[in-house]
Amino acid sequence: MTNRQWIFARAPNGAVSPDCFEWREAPVPVPGPGEVLVRTRMLSLDPANRAWMNGPSYREQVMPGDVMHGFTLGEVVASNVPEFTTGDLVDGMSGWQDYAAVSAGSLTKRNARLAPEHLIGVLGVTGLTAYHGLFDVGLARPGDVVLVSAAAGAVGTITGQLARLAGCHVVGIAGGPEKCDWLVNELGFHGAIDYKAADFRAQLRAACPNGVDVYFDNVAGEVLDAALLSMNERGRIVCCGAVSAYDGGVSPAGSPLLPGLLITRRLRMEGFIVLDYAAARPQAEARLAGWVEAGQLKTFMDIVEGLENAPAGLVRLLAGGNFGKMAVQVA
Amino acid sequence: MTNRQWIFARAPNGAVSPDCFEWREAPVPVPGPGEVLVRTRMLSLDPANRAWMNGPSYREQVMPGDVMHGFTLGEVVASNVPEFTTGDLVDGMSGWQDYAAVSAGSLTKRNARLAPEHLIGVLGVTGLTAYHGLFDVGLARPGDVVLVSAAAGAVGTITGQLARLAGCHVVGIAGGPEKCDWLVNELGFHGAIDYKAADFRAQLRAACPNGVDVYFDNVAGEVLDAALLSMNERGRIVCCGAVSAYDGGVSPAGSPLLPGLLITRRLRMEGFIVLDYAAARPQAEARLAGWVEAGQLKTFMDIVEGLENAPAGLVRLLAGGNFGKMAVQVA
Repeated sequence: MTNRQWIFARAPNGAVSPDCFEWREAPVPVPGPGEVLVRTRMLSLDPANRAWMNGPSYREQVMPGDVMHGFTLGEVVASNVPEFTTGDLVDGMSGWQDYAAVSAGSLTKRNARLAPEHLIGVLGVTGLTAYHGLFDVGLARPGDVVLVSAAAGAVGTITGQLARLAGCHVVGIAGGPEKCDWLVNELGFHGAIDYKAADFRAQLRAACPNGVDVYFDNVAGEVLDAALLSMNERGRIVCCGAVSAYDGGVSPAGSPLLPGLLITRRLRMEGFIVLDYAAARPQAEARLAGWVEAGQLKTFMDIVEGLENAPAGLVRLLAGGNFGKMAVQVA
Repeated sequence: MTNRQWIFARAPNGAVSPDCFEWREAPVPVPGPGEVLVRTRMLSLDPANRAWMNGPSYREQVMPGDVMHGFTLGEVVASNVPEFTTGDLVDGMSGWQDYAAVSAGSLTKRNARLAPEHLIGVLGVTGLTAYHGLFDVGLARPGDVVLVSAAAGAVGTITGQLARLAGCHVVGIAGGPEKCDWLVNELGFHGAIDYKAADFRAQLRAACPNGVDVYFDNVAGEVLDAALLSMNERGRIVCCGAVSAYDGGVSPAGSPLLPGLLITRRLRMEGFIVLDYAAARPQAEARLAGWVEAGQLKTFMDIVEGLENAPAGLVRLLAGGNFGKMAVQVA
């Protein structure tokens, strides 16, 4: 038995590329006292993976030589603690490898009767990010105009649908007409606009003639600037991600609208990390599961087959090539 | 009887200068139905006066040909409405002139037993801005480290003292060692740092070794950038003013730290306008008055004598030449 791994070999200079990673086959680790051996079933690919390469943030930096970090859904195959037994499904941060020996305290047991793709998507970090960002940070309420960037991505597809369920008017921002059509026709967004279009700013104004009350920002940069100009007084800007800055290797120039526009329009901009809402997770997860079961919340998975294809998957994700939640089927 | 006026004659190209204004002597206006004739007693000079020249904001732009706009404390000299009688002291926006005929609805009656300099300062827009910004936007609580920029200015001197009264650790940012000494020795700030010093960023880190919980920002620009780097997780940035941007004629480059740092540190940035808190004014004013009467809140007025010196006063204010609240004694 070997433990297949992707090592983060070198930091990208600009966009991440497959040669940032090196394949290695190592022995399967032996769990120590208090540890559990977990076999990775699914590996979540997230824009944040790229941000982790740029420096310490809300968590440690990924350093050359590390097994590449990542959120995982795994199965317990050996346990030295009474809380976990063989066969348990668990959330964790096993990274880009088949097996990890981890401390029991770093794991969360999941309900094995639920579909794995839901556990790693709408009922995992992705869905919880959308839920807490929209309702706890953005304070979305019925009648609000909610604008979502990276709307065809994992968090965006759920955020937009949750806003619609909450009685908001939802407009998505995505790259290209195909994604925009999909948002309106498949996900029920009220409008969608293409940030790659030459007339993007005019499209945004036309799609939100009464302004924007909540802007759920996954991208930062020029899209944030355009959204700022459409904000209504007392609007909320949910700072969830800044993917336009992640893959460039350097920080972008800041917005000349900040902080002045926050004052004149009384805007609130607030950043959050979903891990801060752990105490509220059971309630949020139960609601998300209820909407999924009732068919009111559609989930779209973009599955990469096989651990060997993880680097190519991340490259495609960061280039905006995914529809919905991207994850690697490892075992 | 003539009505002496300063006309906003031409928009500044960069820093405001006295030749942006033209002196005019006009007849005293006659109040129409529903109007009141107000004689200006004191004219408030505020950094916002300069921002009003740059474009429409939360209020109309000052346009060439207008009597220069400004907050005023005045005395009713004729009234066509039953709510006001001769001798009443009133808050208003009479602008840079001796007399204005204004609609009764635009005036707020003040308590004539209080000192005029308090009515236009700590018990006026200035003090209320500090109070609502610190407590309602910044959510300052005992033990917080509160950092205030333009700390020797009108709002800053009150904000810092209110934070101290609330049990916070208060550090001020001001220009030059004289102002910094004054903040510590006269106003009871726990620390003060000089943004003009070459080692400003090192001074800031040394003055806030445990980071900053609330940054009350009156200036934006490079000082905001330095403050952002010292913010603790879940810190609040109160966007009150952006005076570094007002007098330059062009918007500064934005901060490359935004919005990324808001996410990794879970920060909230929120803008506000004191006029939004009108409903809470009586309570806020009563508290401020109580602290002033008890000697717990010191007020520092920088009085310019005579309407003819208003332009020079505004130029000095924007150059950072004031200690405390600047106002023109008109009559």
